[in-house]
Amino acid sequence: MANHLPTETVSIALAERSYDILIGCGLLDLPSALSCGSASAEALIVTNTTVAPLYAERLQRVLALHHTRVRTIALPDGEVYKDWATLNLIFDELLREAFDRKTVLYALGGGVIGDMTGFAAACYMRGVSYVQVPTTLLAQVDSSVGGKTAINHPAGKNMIGAFYQPLRVIADLDTLDTLPDREISAGLAEVIKYGPIADDAFLGWIEQHIDALRARDKTALACAVRRSCEIKAWVVGQDERESGLRAILNFGHTFGHAIEAGLGYGEWLHGEAVGCGMVMAADLSVRLGLIDAAYAERLTTLIERAGLPTRGPRLGAARYLELMRVDKKSESGQIRFVLIDAPGRASLHRADDALVAEAIEAHCV
Amino acid sequence: MANHLPTETVSIALAERSYDILIGCGLLDLPSALSCGSASAEALIVTNTTVAPLYAERLQRVLALHHTRVRTIALPDGEVYKDWATLNLIFDELLREAFDRKTVLYALGGGVIGDMTGFAAACYMRGVSYVQVPTTLLAQVDSSVGGKTAINHPAGKNMIGAFYQPLRVIADLDTLDTLPDREISAGLAEVIKYGPIADDAFLGWIEQHIDALRARDKTALACAVRRSCEIKAWVVGQDERESGLRAILNFGHTFGHAIEAGLGYGEWLHGEAVGCGMVMAADLSVRLGLIDAAYAERLTTLIERAGLPTRGPRLGAARYLELMRVDKKSESGQIRFVLIDAPGRASLHRADDALVAEAIEAHCV
Repeated sequence: MANHLPTETVSIALAERSYDILIGCGLLDLPSALSCGSASAEALIVTNTTVAPLYAERLQRVLALHHTRVRTIALPDGEVYKDWATLNLIFDELLREAFDRKTVLYALGGGVIGDMTGFAAACYMRGVSYVQVPTTLLAQVDSSVGGKTAINHPAGKNMIGAFYQPLRVIADLDTLDTLPDREISAGLAEVIKYGPIADDAFLGWIEQHIDALRARDKTALACAVRRSCEIKAWVVGQDERESGLRAILNFGHTFGHAIEAGLGYGEWLHGEAVGCGMVMAADLSVRLGLIDAAYAERLTTLIERAGLPTRGPRLGAARYLELMRVDKKSESGQIRFVLIDAPGRASLHRADDALVAEAIEAHCV
Repeated sequence: MANHLPTETVSIALAERSYDILIGCGLLDLPSALSCGSASAEALIVTNTTVAPLYAERLQRVLALHHTRVRTIALPDGEVYKDWATLNLIFDELLREAFDRKTVLYALGGGVIGDMTGFAAACYMRGVSYVQVPTTLLAQVDSSVGGKTAINHPAGKNMIGAFYQPLRVIADLDTLDTLPDREISAGLAEVIKYGPIADDAFLGWIEQHIDALRARDKTALACAVRRSCEIKAWVVGQDERESGLRAILNFGHTFGHAIEAGLGYGEWLHGEAVGCGMVMAADLSVRLGLIDAAYAERLTTLIERAGLPTRGPRLGAARYLELMRVDKKSESGQIRFVLIDAPGRASLHRADDALVAEAIEAHCV
């Protein structure tokens, strides 16, 4: 059944940087899905030690039909390795093997691999092409789409990076079969996010299908990935470099980044931190009188049903605030929060530290 | 007299990334020259330990009129520090001091400072603004203009970087007064370069004024900087990302990079390596029958009169070739050389290794 799902295409309109997101089953073995670079170019698959044994050989075999040379590099797995030292392993390989400016990089893995590969592509010889092949739900619905690439700095997440669009995104839903349950839940956090910020009807659909999604029903997953990508494409198409609207995609992320940084990257999954961050952000929206408590409650219930934490670590509100001040959305030391203005609509707000502290304390273990 | 030279403006036309190059005397003390960022933004001056005591305080004083906060960071001086570890000092400072996305970086120094500050601006929070304030002749006529930013990798020069345009370039000719003679000569290499690749009449003008230029006559320098920037602006305006024409600006650089890498970065100044590289490239142009020997001889004489080396280190032709293969212009392991097609015109060529080796051996000590 699942394999007979039609492949769907969502397009991101960014003038000469436009590209397609392909969503479907069996795409990793489909030569046509993977044909988008120059035929004469060389290719480097960048993956990690967890994903490599699962999918690298298959991808390498199909890419050999399109490229004169295909090599694979497997980085250590985890958010803690999203740093310069690990990024440099990609540059070392590219230079040791004399890959030239026509090289295409393939990011095979989750958000960390996608972000690092994209940033490596942005910087290698001042820019080579890359293709996203996301193998986690989180990467398929969010991080592989839209051209945000980065590495972490000890002082802040994603602080060093570039806006750099891929040639294509290939979301093979079959790769989600090998994903741990915890990572499915983490991905669902970013799916849920699109409801309160852009599409209240989608939130209702997720509520109805949350169990099917957690059970990896392919039809439900295809629908969730497609709608998520459509919303992201719509936002990114209007504001590629996050000068305004695009910031709404960071709903829950300001609190979430503080949780990740406060505990040390990798302790919680990014999606878990975002899940809990959305609970805090919804609460802050209520405290500012933007939405009623029932809507925040509804969102919290769904986040819980997705298998995500709804209570943050007890770092103390002061520490949260300190960590949030280095957020990229901050301006002159003032934190800006993505808050819900109404069901399906969000924007940036400032808030008093005292109110923010209340929203944090109300949702810490 | 010198201070009464009018300030001249050369514009680079790159749609929404267009900007002006201001050329003149006393610009560092001229508030209007330095007013181009957002009035509310914060500023970080990035300079090195040699330039900082000469000009940082003056620049900081003027910038305080435009920015709410101005800080300065002085990096260690030299090409050997054009690496990730030093680049990271900029990120450390920006994050420690909570500089936000509206920050403007000012690159106060030579080519190394300009390349690193530009790349830091390209990457910090996925992109902040920067202004080039070049204080060497080489940076004023070449590296500060056109948006090429980079750091070196142990395996190759400028291998990690970005195309990222500044808000403005401010070339204060007075800063050349403090430059060592050797660096004036190095800068003249890039001035001379524009003759054979784009403007044969300019080559004649340089021949007439080479002594005045070495003596730092401001009128001559103003003319040389302006014409160099005009040619560079014309080239970059047609081919920002070096997909074709822009490569001609690398005349002499393929051989030059091999000299720099072979000796270890910093042993020779970049301009010195380019000077000698142009002699080899002109010789190769002769060997391929593109130009006559007299033109190469004329160029060599001028390079010598500029105070530049015309004979390379004896690394052995095989080592040169090996080092040149990792040049960014290489494709599938084939080196591509910028060669002179006719006086004032250049393009990319391939050449047999044997012929290249002859051109190298003929000009080694």
